[in-house]
Amino acid sequence: MSSLAAWAYLSRVVEGPSWGIQKLLDAGRDAEEIVRGIKTRASWLGELGRETEARYDTDQAHRDLETAARHGARLVTPDDSEWPSEELNHAFGFAATGLSEHLRTYQADAVAPHALWVKGARLNTLFHRAVALVGTRALSTYGAQATEMLVADLAANQWTIVSGGALGADTIAHRSALERGTPTVVVAACGIDRTYPRDNAELFASIIDSPHPGAIVTEYPPGVPPQRHRFLTRNRLVAALTQGTVVVEAAWRSGALNTLSWAEGLGRIPMVVPGPITSTNSLGCHSRIRDGRAQLVTSGRDVRALLEAVGAVDTDAQYELAFAPSDIQALSRNELRIFDALPVHGARETDAIARIAGMSVPLCVHILLDLARRSVVVREGTCWARSPRDE
Amino acid sequence: MSSLAAWAYLSRVVEGPSWGIQKLLDAGRDAEEIVRGIKTRASWLGELGRETEARYDTDQAHRDLETAARHGARLVTPDDSEWPSEELNHAFGFAATGLSEHLRTYQADAVAPHALWVKGARLNTLFHRAVALVGTRALSTYGAQATEMLVADLAANQWTIVSGGALGADTIAHRSALERGTPTVVVAACGIDRTYPRDNAELFASIIDSPHPGAIVTEYPPGVPPQRHRFLTRNRLVAALTQGTVVVEAAWRSGALNTLSWAEGLGRIPMVVPGPITSTNSLGCHSRIRDGRAQLVTSGRDVRALLEAVGAVDTDAQYELAFAPSDIQALSRNELRIFDALPVHGARETDAIARIAGMSVPLCVHILLDLARRSVVVREGTCWARSPRDE
Repeated sequence: MSSLAAWAYLSRVVEGPSWGIQKLLDAGRDAEEIVRGIKTRASWLGELGRETEARYDTDQAHRDLETAARHGARLVTPDDSEWPSEELNHAFGFAATGLSEHLRTYQADAVAPHALWVKGARLNTLFHRAVALVGTRALSTYGAQATEMLVADLAANQWTIVSGGALGADTIAHRSALERGTPTVVVAACGIDRTYPRDNAELFASIIDSPHPGAIVTEYPPGVPPQRHRFLTRNRLVAALTQGTVVVEAAWRSGALNTLSWAEGLGRIPMVVPGPITSTNSLGCHSRIRDGRAQLVTSGRDVRALLEAVGAVDTDAQYELAFAPSDIQALSRNELRIFDALPVHGARETDAIARIAGMSVPLCVHILLDLARRSVVVREGTCWARSPRDE
Repeated sequence: MSSLAAWAYLSRVVEGPSWGIQKLLDAGRDAEEIVRGIKTRASWLGELGRETEARYDTDQAHRDLETAARHGARLVTPDDSEWPSEELNHAFGFAATGLSEHLRTYQADAVAPHALWVKGARLNTLFHRAVALVGTRALSTYGAQATEMLVADLAANQWTIVSGGALGADTIAHRSALERGTPTVVVAACGIDRTYPRDNAELFASIIDSPHPGAIVTEYPPGVPPQRHRFLTRNRLVAALTQGTVVVEAAWRSGALNTLSWAEGLGRIPMVVPGPITSTNSLGCHSRIRDGRAQLVTSGRDVRALLEAVGAVDTDAQYELAFAPSDIQALSRNELRIFDALPVHGARETDAIARIAGMSVPLCVHILLDLARRSVVVREGTCWARSPRDE
């Protein structure tokens, strides 16, 4: 069995995120080895044994790959160069710090996708500057105006617009992106061969065929129907694949707020658009501001300012440093605030670092993960330390 | 010269807040003594000497008191039992901590009024539960709706509505209060014998004649016309006399934002109502939320929750304390958070206390001033300490 077929088999046998698979991958086993283990009911399967009990002996990997191909789709796996590893490592690396209340509720889903079924553009070009715009299906005229305003600015500044393809806010976000000539990505909650909602078939086709092609992405194998629990699981991917999530309108109990909670839980920037206090459509947005759980944004410029504050190297404002030439000299102001909040020797808890640096915990962790990727800092459990350097 | 005439003379000779007068009062001199000093050009006048150079020999105190009386008004001074001493001590006690950037700009005005010319209800009954509602003169339909919504709830809960009597937001706030049967207070920027704006003459008369009478209040002596600098100075009184200020709509450069800055600078709760991002009328409100300088409120209930959190004794949630019977046992949760953030011995800076207690600096200082008034804590310059107690 090829590696691709192995990933296809895994995608079908668990249908969605699986801690069982993740733990075996983390332990160093590869996809083909895990598939062999499942099929032979290996003793080392752990929880994946139970997860795969019902369907381990139905192997339709090749059929699924053929179905996808027939629909113009492909299976993208961690073995591919287009795999959005940076975004996923960042998001689920943050999740692993266990800082978010939301993640305690949705623990079962707080794991990276194992492979993605994709139609359209190569993924690696899409998500380096990507923002999620989501909101209620019952979007008001005001909500539509606000969405178009934000997308117009973000598109002009080459940001990819990611959303869930639903009617209402999602549709307006995708359509505005298309009109403004920036790629847009639909993260679906069903198989790549399905179109949901049906009314958006033409829109989805245009997204792929656009001169600035976007993509349709799902972690579910062909044939899987959209169901409520899959929408909630899908929301985490919308948040994970983007640097921040903006909710344009959401009443009290809106799926968009679930995506916003994922953004928090995955160390992304949660943002909301305010609206009239006389409209129930803005209740959810206002409550998140009131609770200090989201940033208020009133324009694409606000969104960019928040997203670009993260990790941007502000060369003009660079501090003079007494260090020997090193990565430290390339740090932005925000990065230096974080670095300086680390003890010279030993490690410090994330929330203590955030407090000392005077930043929110999510932004702080976001920057810490970036610094860790560049080996400026190292994580030690829930603590962080400066990387050891040559004296 | 009577004490009342002395205050009337002082009100005229400086026309507005005066650090010169305040310093002499703080040094223990009374109004009559200060007036004698001014008239005889006493050597101890300090800066008040310069302030009064031009008009010290024009004494129209009796004429001013007569003019006021003819307009149904009176001069209320710190000697009167209706003087709102609690509110003013609180606000200008906070200002003296020098924590606000705004106060560095408006330092000259950061001093209590020396006396107030008043028409209507006795002041002491008005300000214990008072909230300021202010906003743009060019109020939108949405802004008017939002104002009426907030006032309806606040009136039903016996809050006095304070505003500046201007057209637009102020007028709607006063009128809604009147309709809902709660007292409302106009803080004017001109003499008590003047009516500004003219169009509100009838409204102002109704405020006094209401079955729930409010008041018109000004620190300017009769005849003084409204001028731009007086509006800004007046704004500080709107903020000082209330527990919090709500801005319903304000564009970028709105006087209402100046009042909001005063609320911050005087340790009151700054609040704003959000609105559509497509309306320039909400720009100022949104920018204050974004900058973390105001709380978002979407209802009268939100406003009350913020105002009632300050100093309310929550008996159910009272902590069990090992102390001997004392004031400590009567502290609310928030008060205890602050008290516990003080060192057992010695004093601590305000911002350190706020950080330890996990509260905003303005709220923290608000509570500290309350605790100081009840002798639970003492202020030492910019630091605070637990009051010494019998062992």
